[in-house]
Amino acid sequence: MTKSGDRKVMKVLAGETVFPPPIWLMRQAGRYLPEYRQTRASAKGFLDLCYTPDLAVEVTLQPIRRFGFDAAILFSDILVIPDALDRNVRFVEGEGPLMDPISPDKIADLDGSRLHEHLSPVYETVRRLRAELPEETTLLGFCGAPWTVATYMIAGHGTPDQAPARLFAMRHPEAFEKLLVMLTDLSADYLIAQIDAGADAVQIFDSWAGVLSETDFARYSVEPVKRIVARINRERPGVPVIGFAKGAGALLQNYRSATGVNCVGLDWTVPAALAQDIQKGGAVQGNLDPLRMVAGGAALDQGVDAVLETLGQGPLIFNLGHGITPQADPENVTRLIERVRGAAQS
Amino acid sequence: MTKSGDRKVMKVLAGETVFPPPIWLMRQAGRYLPEYRQTRASAKGFLDLCYTPDLAVEVTLQPIRRFGFDAAILFSDILVIPDALDRNVRFVEGEGPLMDPISPDKIADLDGSRLHEHLSPVYETVRRLRAELPEETTLLGFCGAPWTVATYMIAGHGTPDQAPARLFAMRHPEAFEKLLVMLTDLSADYLIAQIDAGADAVQIFDSWAGVLSETDFARYSVEPVKRIVARINRERPGVPVIGFAKGAGALLQNYRSATGVNCVGLDWTVPAALAQDIQKGGAVQGNLDPLRMVAGGAALDQGVDAVLETLGQGPLIFNLGHGITPQADPENVTRLIERVRGAAQS
Repeated sequence: MTKSGDRKVMKVLAGETVFPPPIWLMRQAGRYLPEYRQTRASAKGFLDLCYTPDLAVEVTLQPIRRFGFDAAILFSDILVIPDALDRNVRFVEGEGPLMDPISPDKIADLDGSRLHEHLSPVYETVRRLRAELPEETTLLGFCGAPWTVATYMIAGHGTPDQAPARLFAMRHPEAFEKLLVMLTDLSADYLIAQIDAGADAVQIFDSWAGVLSETDFARYSVEPVKRIVARINRERPGVPVIGFAKGAGALLQNYRSATGVNCVGLDWTVPAALAQDIQKGGAVQGNLDPLRMVAGGAALDQGVDAVLETLGQGPLIFNLGHGITPQADPENVTRLIERVRGAAQS
Repeated sequence: MTKSGDRKVMKVLAGETVFPPPIWLMRQAGRYLPEYRQTRASAKGFLDLCYTPDLAVEVTLQPIRRFGFDAAILFSDILVIPDALDRNVRFVEGEGPLMDPISPDKIADLDGSRLHEHLSPVYETVRRLRAELPEETTLLGFCGAPWTVATYMIAGHGTPDQAPARLFAMRHPEAFEKLLVMLTDLSADYLIAQIDAGADAVQIFDSWAGVLSETDFARYSVEPVKRIVARINRERPGVPVIGFAKGAGALLQNYRSATGVNCVGLDWTVPAALAQDIQKGGAVQGNLDPLRMVAGGAALDQGVDAVLETLGQGPLIFNLGHGITPQADPENVTRLIERVRGAAQS
């Protein structure tokens, strides 16, 4: 009989080196899986899928059943917080997420009081997941980082470099700061509620960290994440946090110490020397190029071997450097897992 | 009377520290200028503007007349090489560049023999520019880096992370290598012809360097640029090359030594410590966040001061960290130039 103490991902998050490393994939519950597409088709819309525990539990468990990943990540979206703020969030097929862009004078009117009520189905999903998952499987909760969530709230949609939010921050620094503070508080509330519902650890996704200058990165990306981590440390001590600042490049060097995260997510562009340097401070997660899951074959094998060679000697959660794409072949996931789990300590 | 020996940009490219630093802006001949929009409206299309020396000379000179920049950059586009390869390149308003995507089996059929014939109007533009520009103004030629040009040739358009080209390279490494080699040879031919027509120095734009893993960056971004620089050094010794690998992050550290470029372009996300480290090896160019040209005011002033404080003590060509955007206010360019030229050595 296994026990929660056997959760390999948790061991790595505590700084232990486990080899072969535990593995899960960002967006592992997603469109590359036929069973996901089937469940998705039965939901009215994408948010409906997130807010219906029966369906969200099902899609979260699908990749665990099929592949036996070492961690499950709650099926939800980083934009449920703006949705809880009545920003008219919708997901239009082929268009990406949309919502009503917010103007500087409306930020003071945002009302976060319905957060837990609005997101209670998500907490229910987490509770059921922890009950249904194998004991040895880590359950991860997550949220979007305040900066990344703010970029969508300001532009109303994704853009190539989130210029609308960057410009908004330059033109209306006080309103922008107010928005970030609000999102920081709500994100911490949200993660703590996920923890209370059964999440073993949480990940903060800062998908748009890479468009910021050093000064703005410190203020808009690092500072809110630091405040969220501090609240978790204070209010739910011992629950580890993974920080994933995609595209942060050289600025990732001090991300762990600056934010207090237990584990630093690495995208596929992080060079080996920098990744190893970051790993000297503790756990890292990543960083296979997700396109190798589409290409398969030798491209996949070489990529896996390179990650293991670079980071396998220290605390590593094997993952991709970004979410698995709809074009990925599920057969390649099987191949990936076999290669990682079959790896011999070098 | 001024002489070519007074070209400040050339002094910096030779490694000299000039303070206040010389200044020009990427895309300085562009849509933020009313006189550009007027000339643009008189051309049949964007490529027509590039290929009509009367018009291309005019738009290149407009920002020099208005602002007295220290360098003029040839008005053209990085996609004139695919256009010379008959890829049906077109620029559709609001859609960005489009061309026919190339399949792996068609790469061997690409015919570069018409390069110089096709691009002779560009060379004519360079000749006229050198004759018409003030003596002290440096004339820059340019091309796209083979990797960046290849991404468009493969996808047929821009994408958020140029996944089609990355995947193509994984799936068809030999065909991809053949394409890169061809683009490398043609780019070197093209830059050398620009030099012979009167360009004082050239810049290689690798706008999509930031989506590559370390290994792919070395093979696809660095190696072709290195070969272009080697050819220029051999065939036109003494002509400096600026390399701009946008988004390369921590991989920029060794870019100068790896490619042989004389000057490293820095985007606005490069941290101060890395920028200063790169500057120890020679000239750098950049790196004000282009959105500060839209925001203006204190945001602009603080940004300018930060660049000067970080990089003003060494060889610096003041520039933005990417092209100036259509939303920028020309008044902010005046303000920028006054602030840079009025800066006191600290």
